Amino acid sequence: MDSKEMAPGDIERRSFEIITEELGGRTFPPLEEPVVKRVIHTTADFSYADSLVFTHDAAHCALDALRAGATVLTDTNMALAGISKPALAKLGCKAVCYMADPDVAAAARAAGTTRAVASMDKACGIEGPLIVAVGNAPTALLRLAELMDAGKIAPALVVGVPVGFVNVVEAKEELLARRVPAIVARGRKGGSTVTAAIMNALLYQITRPGGPK
Amino acid sequence: MDSKEMAPGDIERRSFEIITEELGGRTFPPLEEPVVKRVIHTTADFSYADSLVFTHDAAHCALDALRAGATVLTDTNMALAGISKPALAKLGCKAVCYMADPDVAAAARAAGTTRAVASMDKACGIEGPLIVAVGNAPTALLRLAELMDAGKIAPALVVGVPVGFVNVVEAKEELLARRVPAIVARGRKGGSTVTAAIMNALLYQITRPGGPK
Repeated sequence: MDSKEMAPGDIERRSFEIITEELGGRTFPPLEEPVVKRVIHTTADFSYADSLVFTHDAAHCALDALRAGATVLTDTNMALAGISKPALAKLGCKAVCYMADPDVAAAARAAGTTRAVASMDKACGIEGPLIVAVGNAPTALLRLAELMDAGKIAPALVVGVPVGFVNVVEAKEELLARRVPAIVARGRKGGSTVTAAIMNALLYQITRPGGPK
Repeated sequence: MDSKEMAPGDIERRSFEIITEELGGRTFPPLEEPVVKRVIHTTADFSYADSLVFTHDAAHCALDALRAGATVLTDTNMALAGISKPALAKLGCKAVCYMADPDVAAAARAAGTTRAVASMDKACGIEGPLIVAVGNAPTALLRLAELMDAGKIAPALVVGVPVGFVNVVEAKEELLARRVPAIVARGRKGGSTVTAAIMNALLYQITRPGGPK
C-alpha cells in the first residue's frame, strides 16, 4: 500500500458501500438515509443507526430551509470549520458561530452565564430561515428551548447532537419535547464532527445529486 | 433544569468523575490517563480505553516537544480549530494546517496526488520539534511513513487517529511498525475531535496542573 493508491472520491464511494453492506438489510426514509450513513462515515460508529431520530419531518424541513438560503448557527468553531463552504455558497446559505465574538463574551459575563447561552440569545436577531446546530453545549439546547417557548426564536430545524456526560441526555429530551423539527442523536454521543456530517449530508442532497448516499 | 445551572468548569470536572467511575478500577500510566479520559470525554465512547495505544514513550516525548515549543501540524482545519490556542501560546507552541494552502493544492494537482499527501511533503520544511496529528486522511499517514523511511522528516510524535473504512486500519498499523513515538486509535475510529482531544490532554498536563484528568 502506498500513499497514492486511491482518489478521495473513490474512497468516499467505497466507504459508503461498506457502510451499506454492514447495515445489512436496514432501510431508512430516503431523505434520512444519507444523514445516517454520513454520520457513520464520520465516526465509524454504527450505533448512530439506532440513536439518530428525526422529528416533525425534519429532513424535509431542512432541505426547504437550505434551498431558501438558510443561516446555519453552530455552537463550536470546529463544527463551523467542518461544514462545506462550497455547498453553502452554492445555495446562498451561510454558517456562523458566535462563540468567539467579543459581544457574546461580554453578554455572558454580564449575565453570569455561558457563551453558549449568550450565543443563542444573539441568534434571535438572525433574519431569514435559521438552522441551529448544537454539537457541544447542552446549555445551548436548553436556552434555545426557553427562547422557543417564549416565542423569541423559531428555527426551521434544530440539530441537537451535543456529546457528554452531564445534562446532555436531558437536554436532548427537552428538545425532542418541543414542536420544532429536530435531528437528535439520543444518548451521550455526538459532537462537532457529527454536527458537520449531518449538515453536509443535508447540503449534499441538493448540491451533489447522485453522489454517495 | 434551566440553562444556567452549572458552570462549564464544573461540568468538565463532573464529567471526568463519571468517566473515572465507569472505567471501574482500570488504571493507565500517569501521562496516558489524561489522554484516554479526554478522548472518552470528547466522544462518550469507552472503546477508546482499549483502542488507544502509546508507543516508544509517546506521552513523555510529546510533553518534552511541547515544552520545547513544538509546531503541531494537523490534516484538517477542524482539528486545528479544536486545539486550545491559549494553551499553545502559553508554551510558545503553534498549530498549523496546510490543507487549504494554494501551494499545497497546486503541488497535489501537479503530482496527481491528494492535498493530504502534499501537506506532509510541505511539513518536511518545518523547523524545530514537530508533532504531526492526523485525524482524517490515511494517505497522510502513509506518506508520512514514506518520508520518515527516507529520512526526510523526524517528528517528535505522531498522533495517528484517522477515521474510516478504507485503508484506515492498515495505515495505522504501518505507523505502529515505525520507530517513531506514536499515539494511535487502533481500528476504524478516530477523527478531528479525537485529534484535538489528544493534543489538548497533552497540553493541559503542562498548562493546567491540577485540572481534570
